[in-house]
Amino acid sequence: MSRFIAGRFASMSAYVPGEQPSDMEYIKLNTNEMPFPLPEVVAKEVENELGKLHLYPNPDGSRLINKIAEIYDITPENVIIGNGSDELLAFAFQAFFESGVVFPDITYGFYPVYAKLYNVPYQEIPLADDMTININDYTAIGQNVILANPNAPTGITLRLDDIEKIALSNPDHVIAIDEAYVDFGADSAVPLTKKYGNLLVIHTYSKSRSMAGARLGFAIGSTPLIEDLNKMKYSFNPYNINRLTQVLGEAALNNEAHFVDKRKEIIEVREYTNRTLEKLGFVLTDSKANFLFCKHPEIGGFELYSKLKDMGILIRQWNKPRILDYVRITIGTREQMDVLITAIKQII
Amino acid sequence: MSRFIAGRFASMSAYVPGEQPSDMEYIKLNTNEMPFPLPEVVAKEVENELGKLHLYPNPDGSRLINKIAEIYDITPENVIIGNGSDELLAFAFQAFFESGVVFPDITYGFYPVYAKLYNVPYQEIPLADDMTININDYTAIGQNVILANPNAPTGITLRLDDIEKIALSNPDHVIAIDEAYVDFGADSAVPLTKKYGNLLVIHTYSKSRSMAGARLGFAIGSTPLIEDLNKMKYSFNPYNINRLTQVLGEAALNNEAHFVDKRKEIIEVREYTNRTLEKLGFVLTDSKANFLFCKHPEIGGFELYSKLKDMGILIRQWNKPRILDYVRITIGTREQMDVLITAIKQII
Repeated sequence: MSRFIAGRFASMSAYVPGEQPSDMEYIKLNTNEMPFPLPEVVAKEVENELGKLHLYPNPDGSRLINKIAEIYDITPENVIIGNGSDELLAFAFQAFFESGVVFPDITYGFYPVYAKLYNVPYQEIPLADDMTININDYTAIGQNVILANPNAPTGITLRLDDIEKIALSNPDHVIAIDEAYVDFGADSAVPLTKKYGNLLVIHTYSKSRSMAGARLGFAIGSTPLIEDLNKMKYSFNPYNINRLTQVLGEAALNNEAHFVDKRKEIIEVREYTNRTLEKLGFVLTDSKANFLFCKHPEIGGFELYSKLKDMGILIRQWNKPRILDYVRITIGTREQMDVLITAIKQII
Repeated sequence: MSRFIAGRFASMSAYVPGEQPSDMEYIKLNTNEMPFPLPEVVAKEVENELGKLHLYPNPDGSRLINKIAEIYDITPENVIIGNGSDELLAFAFQAFFESGVVFPDITYGFYPVYAKLYNVPYQEIPLADDMTININDYTAIGQNVILANPNAPTGITLRLDDIEKIALSNPDHVIAIDEAYVDFGADSAVPLTKKYGNLLVIHTYSKSRSMAGARLGFAIGSTPLIEDLNKMKYSFNPYNINRLTQVLGEAALNNEAHFVDKRKEIIEVREYTNRTLEKLGFVLTDSKANFLFCKHPEIGGFELYSKLKDMGILIRQWNKPRILDYVRITIGTREQMDVLITAIKQII
């Protein structure tokens, strides 16, 4: 740290992303990526852009935004694209949450980091003992709210009528729903954005569209909310999405059937893995995401993580009191999960 | 604008990037891109990454950073990469300029936008009548400083001993040198960063490395300064550089000779265009960038811009009192400049 950094950042802790060790080839079940590469029909779209890389990308990303609007049955004025959903989450904290924000104590670990980065007061509301969100905690709370649906790392979903209740009962605050994992089994709140001007829904291409390495996310909300996020973008980095990612994003939506198939496959493997781990004595939350969140009565979270890492399998575990016993396991291919299960049987 | 946006952003004006009209094909001399596409040997490097786009990029960008360190004869701890240099400029304003910053009245138009975005008090110091920076204005000023070298849109360079004087005489403040255009004829302050822990140098791939469409920039400074910028990055968007851009950035540095050649070509065309415009009665600053900044006694800046646009040529002009008469013309190929010159002859 230098002696020049602004005082309030000196004590701030940055987000720590899942480890990406390069000492050997791991079975990587720690950052919720898809195990399937982009189909060639999508990837090859970059070819036509390579000759134009000397020119700035379209800052408003209109072709991609028009396509997103078409797929989600909204208008382009209701969409903004970001350098991953993380960038859009950051813009939302910066633009809307100045007066404060609430979110669960167990959720995406980046929310408290954004709050500190933008000097946003925040309150973490404990999940119930069964790791579910108690909707009454957020109804008419008179605060900005951010909730992940499904929640991470629990994978537990919210019901749309509950989200509606929160948006309706907090009309003077922004309700942000982070739908990073929605395509694996939750209901999207996108249709509700037409009815509630204070509802913002954030999506990513990193999970269900196999594009974590290309960095692309989008947010959907009322025209004024999107205008505000664009103001943040144009005051920070107008050319935030490079040319190649823009065409990949469009091509992915032109091949949506492929991704729908792959999500089905992940869901099937998730249910298979869930049943198998349950038989081995694991306690699991009802995850509708592309990961499982579980604990075993006879082994701590860190011990399981460490032993699996020694065996070449990466999973995620947190040094956080309430979930010390738990691990989060990304759903890979059926073959990868069988390797995992064999390893776990050896350990326990 | 929504009623939810934080009060201080309500009156903020975002940056307005150069226009990118799609109504027809223009000769594009308005955003200082290179007229030359990336060589195929660089562009083809994306091929090996397309099959890995489902996996997050390396957040620390170590391969690319090691290569930058090698080229600039520094250590990797002194380098950070950004989603264009704009992202790194933003991080610098956020991390270091809380107490205030000074910069010229005529310079990169994004500086006052960043200042407003991060609530940074700023003072614009007028350029001298001949559009040069008076070094005494910044010596021992007891403030953070940001200067573009060459300056934009004037193209006028600073001397390294003057930069050293500013860094040395303001030891308790950060001196940021924005070297977006340095490769077209100014001396880089990178070697000085080894001596002055308060000196930060920001570079971009958008200009002299033909990669505006891929979005990549980097900053070089003392280890503590780079640690602080990394804290901003990891608190905002750890995976800020996508996989394809990382490999393109590395490949470009492996083919540096190509870009050195192309810069020479731009410099030659700049000098040719400079001489020709001078003969036509233009007054020009002594630009060492890939653009010219000039005015003609018989035609206003907006009029020249408009007439050229009607003829299919885009240049840049600002609605800013002190430079109303001026236009900025990006140096394209010799052929493009001849089309421009013919058009200008018709207009005046």
